[in-house]
Amino acid sequence: MKATRIAIVGYGNVGRGVYKALERNPDMSLAGIISRDPNRVRNEFGNTIVPITSPDNLRVINADVAILCGGSKDDLPKQGPFFVEHYNTVDSFDTHAKIPEYFHKIDEFARKNGKTSIISAGWDPGTFSVNRVLMDAFLPGTIPKAFYGLGETGGLSMGHSDAVRQVKGVKDARQYTHAIPEAIERVRDGENPDLSVGEMHWRECYVVAENDDPGEMERISDEIISMPNYFKPYETKVHFVTQEILDKQFSGMPHDGLVLAVGETGDGNYASIEYKNVWQSNPEATGNVLVACARACYKLKKRHQIGAYTMLDISPADLSIHSQEELLRDFM
Amino acid sequence: MKATRIAIVGYGNVGRGVYKALERNPDMSLAGIISRDPNRVRNEFGNTIVPITSPDNLRVINADVAILCGGSKDDLPKQGPFFVEHYNTVDSFDTHAKIPEYFHKIDEFARKNGKTSIISAGWDPGTFSVNRVLMDAFLPGTIPKAFYGLGETGGLSMGHSDAVRQVKGVKDARQYTHAIPEAIERVRDGENPDLSVGEMHWRECYVVAENDDPGEMERISDEIISMPNYFKPYETKVHFVTQEILDKQFSGMPHDGLVLAVGETGDGNYASIEYKNVWQSNPEATGNVLVACARACYKLKKRHQIGAYTMLDISPADLSIHSQEELLRDFM
Repeated sequence: MKATRIAIVGYGNVGRGVYKALERNPDMSLAGIISRDPNRVRNEFGNTIVPITSPDNLRVINADVAILCGGSKDDLPKQGPFFVEHYNTVDSFDTHAKIPEYFHKIDEFARKNGKTSIISAGWDPGTFSVNRVLMDAFLPGTIPKAFYGLGETGGLSMGHSDAVRQVKGVKDARQYTHAIPEAIERVRDGENPDLSVGEMHWRECYVVAENDDPGEMERISDEIISMPNYFKPYETKVHFVTQEILDKQFSGMPHDGLVLAVGETGDGNYASIEYKNVWQSNPEATGNVLVACARACYKLKKRHQIGAYTMLDISPADLSIHSQEELLRDFM
Repeated sequence: MKATRIAIVGYGNVGRGVYKALERNPDMSLAGIISRDPNRVRNEFGNTIVPITSPDNLRVINADVAILCGGSKDDLPKQGPFFVEHYNTVDSFDTHAKIPEYFHKIDEFARKNGKTSIISAGWDPGTFSVNRVLMDAFLPGTIPKAFYGLGETGGLSMGHSDAVRQVKGVKDARQYTHAIPEAIERVRDGENPDLSVGEMHWRECYVVAENDDPGEMERISDEIISMPNYFKPYETKVHFVTQEILDKQFSGMPHDGLVLAVGETGDGNYASIEYKNVWQSNPEATGNVLVACARACYKLKKRHQIGAYTMLDISPADLSIHSQEELLRDFM
């Protein structure tokens, strides 16, 4: 079997995650890396023979699928339409509110160019979306709820960390999201409670201030806690630490979470479905899911299913490396 | 929107579960019930206007999909090929080792008659199979493991209850499967342990003996415990109870379980995916999944995708009552 050739577009945390994931998938091969700063990537790879180029020179990389690893705010709205002119694409566009608009834009460009795209892949949006839809289908009438940061450290939120870094006087910061266990228990107990966002999660910030003036630290703390949408609706704790401690103790990118639906079957029989993920490395988890979606993307393309898709449109078999006979025999 | 018309074939526990599930799915309607004993079903329904007939008189029931609710041992091998000549079908064929053979047989008959069938739907095989495949795709190299009977009562196994009832001198019996929590913890800890079946589960039998002779009870107990495949590889406890207690305390059909895969991403970062179900009524749970699959079955048929499928071939969107726009907006 000929391996599916993958181009990695953007070599940050998620791009590195995809690179590592390709090694674990023998039906996939790395066609090359596309970066706005190919020299930086070349330096990292040393003398290996991975083709590395910039978006201006795509001819160097002959790929079946390009996995777009850029951010949702600035990169993907431009890169998605650009790259789908040249490649089938998979991305992890994760601005939930803008997914319909992004979907239709990519769909238009993909159809125009006879390409196939899977957008918004990863774990949320992604596998969590899949589970929300399946829970709604198998337990109609329930409202699947998602919780993040189940463990002691919580889950690192890149978006909230960025928001804290925007506050004047903040040199660096990390934000960890924590689920509120009592809220999870209330859902599990079958109450179907109407929970506000602040009843489901609380937020913890580790902040390096530019100077250690106590008044300044109080102002920074107040500004964070009162930030609309990001922190105001939540209980928020702010800890000031040194850069050294931040780098040493908070350098990982763990995240975990669960989706949970609780309802009834028949005449009042308790029923619950729960889907839980624990990732020591959030971007590597995203990388793993993106690679499986690249496999599905190329299968769709070979069946002439062009246009944009999400993981909600993809069957488990299309994500799998295994043949139909293997799946029937070993996985059913 | 015109509701999809469902025929229920076989009105036992699963058939009743499907009947109840249809009420919770506004895009579905009951076309009728097909039973070998229509009078028994008519008696249960009283003066309602549900069409009830036997397999000999299918013309009475005009359905888009027939949900076959018979057993895998004796009913489905005959009913599957028979009904797919007349209807698109969904069934819960659950003899794991014979799924490939059954799949190909139904595929042949479905294609011959231009029909669509989803076989082996339910929770295991079914949603657990889906999760085994997704976990293998997202965490390649891990071996997803399934555990059953997580709660105190364990999970009622119909197959094992039947096996106990075959023992001479047994008037009635129920068998509960229990997961061994230490085994689950070993998997969660990332050991990827090689577990025998007896290291994962133990079995508990509640038996009504035909007479209360102590020697007879010892013989029955020994025969159960030493039964190959069913009990010999497991730690098994046998309790003798009266019929009254069995009927009163053990009349429910609870079952629960989880599928769990633990591995690594990148260079040794812990990763786990866990999928858990709790059902106070196992046959109603199966009914709920079958109804969602009937929705998908009819969508496939309308797209001219004929032949046999399993849930591994079905996208979440096809199982859902919601439109693409609703899914993009509310579930991603």
